[in-house]
Amino acid sequence: MVLAKVWTLTRRPNGIARKEDFACIEEELSPCNDGEVIVEAEYLTVDPYMRFMTRRIPLNSAMIGSQIARIIESKNAKWPVGKHLLCHSGWRSHSKISAETLELSDSWAGCMELSDIGDLPKSLWLGILGMPGITAYFGFLEICQPKAGETVLVNGAAGAVGSAVVQIAKIKGCKVIAFAGSEEKVAWVKELGADYSFNYKTTNVGEALGQAAPEKINCYFDNVGGEFTAEALPHMADFGRISVCGAISTYNDEAKDFGRAALNSPFSEGTLIWKQLKIEGFLALRWKERWLEYLEQMKKWISMGMIKYKETITQGFDNMPDAFIGLFKGDNIGKAIIIP
Amino acid sequence: MVLAKVWTLTRRPNGIARKEDFACIEEELSPCNDGEVIVEAEYLTVDPYMRFMTRRIPLNSAMIGSQIARIIESKNAKWPVGKHLLCHSGWRSHSKISAETLELSDSWAGCMELSDIGDLPKSLWLGILGMPGITAYFGFLEICQPKAGETVLVNGAAGAVGSAVVQIAKIKGCKVIAFAGSEEKVAWVKELGADYSFNYKTTNVGEALGQAAPEKINCYFDNVGGEFTAEALPHMADFGRISVCGAISTYNDEAKDFGRAALNSPFSEGTLIWKQLKIEGFLALRWKERWLEYLEQMKKWISMGMIKYKETITQGFDNMPDAFIGLFKGDNIGKAIIIP
Repeated sequence: MVLAKVWTLTRRPNGIARKEDFACIEEELSPCNDGEVIVEAEYLTVDPYMRFMTRRIPLNSAMIGSQIARIIESKNAKWPVGKHLLCHSGWRSHSKISAETLELSDSWAGCMELSDIGDLPKSLWLGILGMPGITAYFGFLEICQPKAGETVLVNGAAGAVGSAVVQIAKIKGCKVIAFAGSEEKVAWVKELGADYSFNYKTTNVGEALGQAAPEKINCYFDNVGGEFTAEALPHMADFGRISVCGAISTYNDEAKDFGRAALNSPFSEGTLIWKQLKIEGFLALRWKERWLEYLEQMKKWISMGMIKYKETITQGFDNMPDAFIGLFKGDNIGKAIIIP
Repeated sequence: MVLAKVWTLTRRPNGIARKEDFACIEEELSPCNDGEVIVEAEYLTVDPYMRFMTRRIPLNSAMIGSQIARIIESKNAKWPVGKHLLCHSGWRSHSKISAETLELSDSWAGCMELSDIGDLPKSLWLGILGMPGITAYFGFLEICQPKAGETVLVNGAAGAVGSAVVQIAKIKGCKVIAFAGSEEKVAWVKELGADYSFNYKTTNVGEALGQAAPEKINCYFDNVGGEFTAEALPHMADFGRISVCGAISTYNDEAKDFGRAALNSPFSEGTLIWKQLKIEGFLALRWKERWLEYLEQMKKWISMGMIKYKETITQGFDNMPDAFIGLFKGDNIGKAIIIP
């Protein structure tokens, strides 16, 4: 009998989440039936999108999320003990996975066997080689369609996604203006190659953009939204493209939940019209069929030293809510990973 | 000596414009020098975009705008007396046009000779055959990329642009949900083929959309913006496309002028992301090179009875500001035209 620890949501957060909104319970996993496996989490992830889920999952159910796990018990010949996989079991130390889930061909709904990434840590499947990396790569290249020589604005630039966008934009020959939330982050983003790197907490965003981009901004990869985007919008060039990846500054505000009718957003119609801007929101799973293509490219760039990454590791399954809450306080540089 | 009447802007409007914001002055036009012509306006136009210009043109200068005019004096062999042209002389009864302007190949900056449109009135060059028609045709087809069977939302649907979009969407095999601002307008839009036609002044927009589009909206052609768009956004389908043509509900609000950093707009980041919406603002002149292509198509549709149009004619050059102000009060059905 395997004992699983599970973080459940016990209360809808009001504003920024608090540890008391979650509870850690124990679940006994009965032995595997035919076709089933039991896995043990090796790396878990917290991501900003989970804040939306705290408004939507049933109370007292497990928080959703992906993890990298190792099979510790198996009655499925295709998935033997010792094999690693990426699964979507949520905030659980151990999980039983059904035969049906293991058979799903859609790895974003079921499980994915991990291909060979050499000496790279398996945690990268939750970061630069996984959903955040795909988000950065396709969300920037497909939506912004950057051309060499163009000016690119990235915020949340020391995050898992933003730091990848900064580097991909430099690889593509763009001028990059990046914003992050601490001096340490700003210094790292500069190391990654950003032409300009600002601390948004100590900088007037509009003034900084006026000085750094007198030629105006062609591509804007937005992780932050809200006031930042309002300040940036007047600095867009005619025919500018905005990839709306996230809006972390708004996620704790109920009035800005998705599906609400409200007049509190930064994309002024007049500016959209007169500058002929194109704005697109997206979810990374749009490109799930192209993960392999992405992997090949990204492994190559990493091996050549052209893409660097960082992880902020939280030790201990018990600290998972803290890692999640930390996302909204700017605690992480690069990808937030939990090692249980 | 020709005496021209000219409407100038004497005061920046505060909210909806008032007649006292304008003054009608007289200008003596000296006889033509070599290469010049003098024209007399036969049809003038007022369009919502001019409200932006009232914030930008120098005070006491002529209001900008296009007109259809007839040459009444000429020292230019290519442009003889009696010929009609489309020019951008502003709110003037008579204008002198320089040789340089006549020679510009860009008809949106200079002048355009009017090609043969048979029995159709020349005023259509300011409406369905001109800028508003091009706005509707390319702004809808190129940006929304509608497919047969998709659901299309159009507001300002009895206006010059909106009424064309309703009909083009029906030609393309779409289901059309239209909103206008009076019972008379709603009835006309229904005649044009809209599957649903609502009076936004007496209808809850969100509720109406919930009932008319349970399948959600794929394409939204927005002329109105503001509260209407806020209500419509939650009813968009995944991967919906929004063509931001105009936002007339916001034009009299200084806080919503273009280029301002503000959080007062309806395009919620969360909804953009989770529905993966694409939003694009545009100016019709983007497609100016395709005017001829457009003309051929539109003349065909009109001759086949597939596109209908209306004009709201204001008689008298002296009443031009009233016609302009009327745009924002919903006075016009179809294109607002002034016959001086």
